[in-house]
Amino acid sequence: MRILGIDPGIAIAGFGFVDKVGSKLTPVQYGSIETEAGTAPEKRLLQIYEAAVALIEKYKPDAVAVEKLFFNRNVTTAFAVGQARGVIILAAAQRGLPVAEYTPLQVKQAVVGYGKAEKRQVQEMVRMFLKLSSVPKPDDVADALAVAICHAHSAVLQQKINEVSRK
Amino acid sequence: MRILGIDPGIAIAGFGFVDKVGSKLTPVQYGSIETEAGTAPEKRLLQIYEAAVALIEKYKPDAVAVEKLFFNRNVTTAFAVGQARGVIILAAAQRGLPVAEYTPLQVKQAVVGYGKAEKRQVQEMVRMFLKLSSVPKPDDVADALAVAICHAHSAVLQQKINEVSRK
Repeated sequence: MRILGIDPGIAIAGFGFVDKVGSKLTPVQYGSIETEAGTAPEKRLLQIYEAAVALIEKYKPDAVAVEKLFFNRNVTTAFAVGQARGVIILAAAQRGLPVAEYTPLQVKQAVVGYGKAEKRQVQEMVRMFLKLSSVPKPDDVADALAVAICHAHSAVLQQKINEVSRK
Repeated sequence: MRILGIDPGIAIAGFGFVDKVGSKLTPVQYGSIETEAGTAPEKRLLQIYEAAVALIEKYKPDAVAVEKLFFNRNVTTAFAVGQARGVIILAAAQRGLPVAEYTPLQVKQAVVGYGKAEKRQVQEMVRMFLKLSSVPKPDDVADALAVAICHAHSAVLQQKINEVSRK
């Protein structure tokens, strides 16, 4: 199962593709979609959408996981991030991919096992889970991979529940 | 010049197409795009996007005007509305249409001539400008037409500035 994790944003959106085989996780590709500040908002949204479509078509994920960011942000930021998030989710929905949403608390609990974990702890766990030599930069990329790992762990859990209920 | 005014939302997005010939405004079509509460968020975004694409292809506007809603709303709402707004703006951007944004204050000033005007006053002015027998319902539709009128008035003003600067 291949999972695409997304940390959405207008200036920079982090992405990370992670393969899950059993409980083993392997990073496939990760990076960021970036747009320039001077560009018209509608053109930036178009660039983000087209980049998301290209990534989905190239790496063919089975599921998409997005951070549900509405804590510690102001309304104007939420609005702008929401727009970027909307066009990325659309790119997934047009290809029939399931889209899961996780709060930062859920991501921290799944990755570190502790909802109040610090950013640095999350990043270090991402590096360890994916056997990377260093923490991916910028933060948006590490965050995107963290959401993908969170979804992978939720999927493992869901599978175990299904197995138990099948017995 | 044909203007598409949009009042974005996930459950209901108002739209209104208005033709501007000189300073005369004529309503072409107006209504709402609605999605059901029980549906997955990504499917709702896809439905909104597809409805926006169909409307733009049918009524072929020259410009799109959207309300820039970030007052009196909480962060969660801003996030959801932002997503809906993102996919509608994307539909316009994919067709090369210019997208203008107006704050509620700008809309009120353009339509009523008074930034603190009440909702009822804006709606009544929309009815009068477009020579409608009654105020369009629900409010989202009247709001979408108000944004279209706001853009028409801004366009008239911009035209006058251009004429003066050409002399």
